[in-house]
Amino acid sequence: MAARFPTAVYDRRLTRAAQLAADAGVTALIVTPGPDLEYLIGSDAQTFERLSALVVPAAGDPSLVVPRLEVATFADSAAGELGVDFSPWVDGQDPYALALAGLPPNPVVAVSDSMTAGHLVPLMAVTGTAPRLATDILRDLRMIKDDDEIEALRRAGAAIDRVHARMGEWLRPGRTEAQVAADIADALIAEGHSAAAFVIVGSGPNGADPHHEHSDRVIEADDVVVIDIGGPVDPGYNSDCTRTYCFGDVPAEIVVAYEALEEAQQAAVAAVRPGVTAESVDAVARERLAAAGLADKFIHRTGHGIGLSVHEEPYIVAGNDLVLAPGMAFSVEPGIYFDGRWGARIEDIVIVTDDGCESVNRRSHALTRLIPAPTEELT
Amino acid sequence: MAARFPTAVYDRRLTRAAQLAADAGVTALIVTPGPDLEYLIGSDAQTFERLSALVVPAAGDPSLVVPRLEVATFADSAAGELGVDFSPWVDGQDPYALALAGLPPNPVVAVSDSMTAGHLVPLMAVTGTAPRLATDILRDLRMIKDDDEIEALRRAGAAIDRVHARMGEWLRPGRTEAQVAADIADALIAEGHSAAAFVIVGSGPNGADPHHEHSDRVIEADDVVVIDIGGPVDPGYNSDCTRTYCFGDVPAEIVVAYEALEEAQQAAVAAVRPGVTAESVDAVARERLAAAGLADKFIHRTGHGIGLSVHEEPYIVAGNDLVLAPGMAFSVEPGIYFDGRWGARIEDIVIVTDDGCESVNRRSHALTRLIPAPTEELT
Repeated sequence: MAARFPTAVYDRRLTRAAQLAADAGVTALIVTPGPDLEYLIGSDAQTFERLSALVVPAAGDPSLVVPRLEVATFADSAAGELGVDFSPWVDGQDPYALALAGLPPNPVVAVSDSMTAGHLVPLMAVTGTAPRLATDILRDLRMIKDDDEIEALRRAGAAIDRVHARMGEWLRPGRTEAQVAADIADALIAEGHSAAAFVIVGSGPNGADPHHEHSDRVIEADDVVVIDIGGPVDPGYNSDCTRTYCFGDVPAEIVVAYEALEEAQQAAVAAVRPGVTAESVDAVARERLAAAGLADKFIHRTGHGIGLSVHEEPYIVAGNDLVLAPGMAFSVEPGIYFDGRWGARIEDIVIVTDDGCESVNRRSHALTRLIPAPTEELT
Repeated sequence: MAARFPTAVYDRRLTRAAQLAADAGVTALIVTPGPDLEYLIGSDAQTFERLSALVVPAAGDPSLVVPRLEVATFADSAAGELGVDFSPWVDGQDPYALALAGLPPNPVVAVSDSMTAGHLVPLMAVTGTAPRLATDILRDLRMIKDDDEIEALRRAGAAIDRVHARMGEWLRPGRTEAQVAADIADALIAEGHSAAAFVIVGSGPNGADPHHEHSDRVIEADDVVVIDIGGPVDPGYNSDCTRTYCFGDVPAEIVVAYEALEEAQQAAVAAVRPGVTAESVDAVARERLAAAGLADKFIHRTGHGIGLSVHEEPYIVAGNDLVLAPGMAFSVEPGIYFDGRWGARIEDIVIVTDDGCESVNRRSHALTRLIPAPTEELT
């Protein structure tokens, strides 16, 4: 049973969601399982081929359209205490018509990002209108974390810091990336995560692929190793933190490039404050790396929002002129990638404050040298 | 790295998919990560907020639109050997326009079931036309399993049978459902699954909820326990098998109802052959249970197709007049549910043959009495 916030939190969110729907000129939000549903009623239900959806009309009471035999999966959500009407349906009924019952004809609906085409296409056949994205309408609401959410992100940050602090227990030459990843996954749970959502162990040349997960490659003594790990901590807010490790002396070329990366990450974090744009933070990291001759080695955006989803708004990327505001939470994670040789990345989750930002990750950013002897580490 | 079939299998499937697209009058299939993508190119890539999609035009060569930094995740798919063109894109580019490049204006596209609204809504903004479901167009192709797929389903069936055969090692009074589920999950992997996709341990009153997963309820000596378990076996075809267990003598009322369930399940399996409809198989199970006075205890459809997805076409449900044909694979799983007291379900996966069907699950259907060995200590 998933932990969740007090019911009053969801009550406030539902009310605000209906207001935002009205402001956006949509008839109703139709929210299938996923982060938006978790945000609105604290349900971690999953998407199946039978429609489950929360309908939040701009005016009127929300309701839950749920297959009769999945009603129980909403028992641990806030729906009951919120007094949300259940509309159970059985095989043979049209759940899309049921979801739209009570709305005016040809409603303009907004659907959650996570709704699958398997549900959206038949829903559109009933509405007769093009849908909008509820995730866009809820964007401002979900982007600005409240005090409870910020506290949850801090707990997640502390949990992942504890895992990185123990990295020397598992990460050493002679082991495969997969062996190290399995130990890290166990440690994620042991340190308070409810799941190991992702475990990237990118050693040597694999570190040059930002989306490498892990492999049967045996880690070598002169490898640089990128460790990017995280997962949800009750009530579902995610950790996400990258540190880069080595085992001995590294060539001067790597030291110099890594220092430029560290400086770029720090400069980007220092640039975060209310009133600046998301893209300006990306530009700071990019300019610093460019000044060090590393422009073409930084091949991804600087960061992504985080909360109930590992990746959500705001994206810290060129072209995003969103103005940062207190309560926004996102990663700052520039990286450098030398194809076929090595890579490095430094990632912290930061929360925008009234005059800057707070990082929920506190471990050293240095290229951390692990001494390949039992459980000792040196930073 | 996921196992997959020889490249020629995917080559044949892609050719057939393009023909089906042409037959259906759509310009192209646009397939995001999920079972359709796994079916067409053997890729187990996942969906992220950046678009990855295989474009299969009715006429012309298929291409893969992939974020540059996720190209490596397609390395173990058949895409390379098939000569599929890669269209990598980077942040700032419009991947939806890229997916439609080379197609005529206002194309009628068909998208995979699993495409999220987060991708479909912006894609529709570019096409300007309502999408169709590629999954529908690929339905006949994916429903009729070829010899390799049937062999894969047999292996999955044998693997889950081995787990049920070991149930007495873990399932006993005094343990919680969650403890039993954890052991079953380990056994799923040990017996050849690549993941424990679902583990339902429904003891006593929890057995009366068909979608109950597991809980901290302590199993009692007079419980009836529903165990519904499965997961993918390389190259990704799923097992799914339910058996019902007890620990001692059960009341005559339960014995009688269970025997009716067993007979209903057998009758439904016996009804499966080419030329009959999916709904007729459902009707057989339903009529048998009704004849035993249990009509209102059977609250779900009789079965679902299975393959790369745990739930796919054909659905064995009232209203589905699909005519069964050799190579179709689905569950036959009637159940009876006594609210607040107990439940039972019997599930086999069957494959339609030329003159009937073959069950890939071979364990006894009886209400299986487990006798805990007194010397064993398990908590």
